[in-house]
Amino acid sequence: MQNFTFISPTKIIFGKDTESLLGNEVKQYSSNVLLCYGGGSIKKTGVYDKVINSLKHSNVNYTELSGIRPNPRLSLVYQGIKLCRENNINFIIGVGGGSVIDTAKAIAVGVPYNGDVWDFYTGKQEVTKALPVGDILTIPATGTEASNSSVITNEQGLFKKGINSDLIRPVFSILNPELTFTLPAYQTACGACDMMAHIMERYFTNEPNVDLTDRLSEAALKTIINNTPLVLKNPKDYNARAEIMWAGTLAHNGLMGTGRVEDWASHKIEHELSAIYDIAHGAGLSIIFPAWMRYVYKHNIKRFVQFAVRVWDVNLSFDNEEAIALEGIRRITEFFKSIGLPVTLTDAGISQDRIEEMADKCTASDTNTLGNFVTLHKQDIINIYKMAK
Amino acid sequence: MQNFTFISPTKIIFGKDTESLLGNEVKQYSSNVLLCYGGGSIKKTGVYDKVINSLKHSNVNYTELSGIRPNPRLSLVYQGIKLCRENNINFIIGVGGGSVIDTAKAIAVGVPYNGDVWDFYTGKQEVTKALPVGDILTIPATGTEASNSSVITNEQGLFKKGINSDLIRPVFSILNPELTFTLPAYQTACGACDMMAHIMERYFTNEPNVDLTDRLSEAALKTIINNTPLVLKNPKDYNARAEIMWAGTLAHNGLMGTGRVEDWASHKIEHELSAIYDIAHGAGLSIIFPAWMRYVYKHNIKRFVQFAVRVWDVNLSFDNEEAIALEGIRRITEFFKSIGLPVTLTDAGISQDRIEEMADKCTASDTNTLGNFVTLHKQDIINIYKMAK
Repeated sequence: MQNFTFISPTKIIFGKDTESLLGNEVKQYSSNVLLCYGGGSIKKTGVYDKVINSLKHSNVNYTELSGIRPNPRLSLVYQGIKLCRENNINFIIGVGGGSVIDTAKAIAVGVPYNGDVWDFYTGKQEVTKALPVGDILTIPATGTEASNSSVITNEQGLFKKGINSDLIRPVFSILNPELTFTLPAYQTACGACDMMAHIMERYFTNEPNVDLTDRLSEAALKTIINNTPLVLKNPKDYNARAEIMWAGTLAHNGLMGTGRVEDWASHKIEHELSAIYDIAHGAGLSIIFPAWMRYVYKHNIKRFVQFAVRVWDVNLSFDNEEAIALEGIRRITEFFKSIGLPVTLTDAGISQDRIEEMADKCTASDTNTLGNFVTLHKQDIINIYKMAK
Repeated sequence: MQNFTFISPTKIIFGKDTESLLGNEVKQYSSNVLLCYGGGSIKKTGVYDKVINSLKHSNVNYTELSGIRPNPRLSLVYQGIKLCRENNINFIIGVGGGSVIDTAKAIAVGVPYNGDVWDFYTGKQEVTKALPVGDILTIPATGTEASNSSVITNEQGLFKKGINSDLIRPVFSILNPELTFTLPAYQTACGACDMMAHIMERYFTNEPNVDLTDRLSEAALKTIINNTPLVLKNPKDYNARAEIMWAGTLAHNGLMGTGRVEDWASHKIEHELSAIYDIAHGAGLSIIFPAWMRYVYKHNIKRFVQFAVRVWDVNLSFDNEEAIALEGIRRITEFFKSIGLPVTLTDAGISQDRIEEMADKCTASDTNTLGNFVTLHKQDIINIYKMAK
């Protein structure tokens, strides 16, 4: 087990009707906030009205920034920073899914910084200061509600980049599973896949003696696997929605990575897909992760055996470890299909024209490599994209 | 699943040599601290010298409060409060096990309070203010290093009482598994039992649809069950010590209780034992918990079946649920015995003379009852003590 530092200070306010507690929470920090949200869905579902009422009731002044889309754009971050500066705003609220909250976080680091906020995303600058962020989550998926990360797309060149800093962990996060009842099946499935990927990016490690984090990871994976089909069958199944929502937060608050070297190759390989083709991140992951698994499983077959046996209840003879590992990969692939996700580029209608370009982009770092479970070079990434065809 | 609020802001600094980071962490909060510790063990092991060097290196001024014993006494808390007031101290460090850290927390709430700090423990006053606490844990057991609780014994009448407040969660906790190498086998086993009890107090609930918290709890239980025999065999097994240490923190930071109604009867029944007989809390729990299980299992047999199957791998026919439940209880009892813990009052040399007195004391609340899984009245508690004879 590796030495680690773990901090997850986000106050989780979980359950029915909790969005009405927003004003009360916020006013402990500020009475002048930026309220970020997406398209019209929170207005249709009535969440918007509840949020506004709660803020008004607590005498919290708000300025709105709306229209945040999936794969959130840098231009809107600039707009939010401008609004905050013009109005002396010192707290950012995100009401929505990962894109909204990631935008809120980007604005939070951008306001106190004199340069271009994109500098943080390109690694030119390290985050040393951020306004506090709070959120109401409506799409469980990215885990950003308690994570240290924010991913933004720069529409100039379609670069999708992320930052990590404990300073951008939200101070509170309101999670009401009822708000996810109206999530379409496809988005629900994409969210489930994203959560599973967050766990698996940490689970596939070469670090030995990570018994507890392995078991916690398996616990969360099994919860997501068991409950996703239930909500697809009955979108208003509160309990199943609640299990998924809470699992999504724990999947990415850092707990599942304690003591290990994490991988994150699949996420970066996927980011290039969604930056160019604008497909949902979860749908990109359901294509990339199984391909990555087939490409790397031989490197540490015992890890894939454990994954197959403990997570997927594969019960084949241990004489043939490769058969067990492959059966585990087959089961996760079938699971993704069963919840309506693409598992190949073809399924998602993506051609292979730009594979080389994507492989170039995602290896454009100091080392020109990706991943820690297996170190991947440009040609490996091309092979993985091709394996996913 | 119940609505819940969860906050666990403690920064965990985990791994080898991490005690040398103390001064650097502390100085972010204060340059004038109270340093609490127990008997001579931290001097023998060299931890004391490292702590002092680290504080000096960071120019942090310290005043010492030593001699804190297991089942920590109120009189020493008073002494600590006095020291802080006399020396304008605004940060409390505990270096040691649960008793030391619980004492540090008690001092932290006592300093800014004008009345008697015991008021908080009797429920006369609610905690509204506390000095920040940081710690170096040397005995993984109580989970106090990231919990919201503190348990103190008032030697006037041998009352052992606890408080719960998010304000007393340590701001940081330094966990170096190496510091636990010298823990005697008995204390190691007591710690393991205490952790398991923290999880089981939450696991035995009548709340349905707590799939994730169930699985997380089972994960932590299995980790403790698997690793405790390893450290008893080889006390310097770093990895096994690390698994147990991290499991002990997560067992009691609140995570395993999210969404449930918790029980806590066994802890309170045990507290009377250790207040009177001064036996280790973990050794009291290994006596009380199995007795409690035998007394209540029929109330919700499916919970005990799940416990037996998932935690203890009981593989009997599901035709006979009672047999499965009882086999689970038998296995945990055998496990406690196998790690050298008492499982009856007789094992611990405790007579039955004061059962009535203990039952009176632990039901001395507004409701005169204990527990939520099954509501226990005085006679039930007498029955459980007798079952444990």
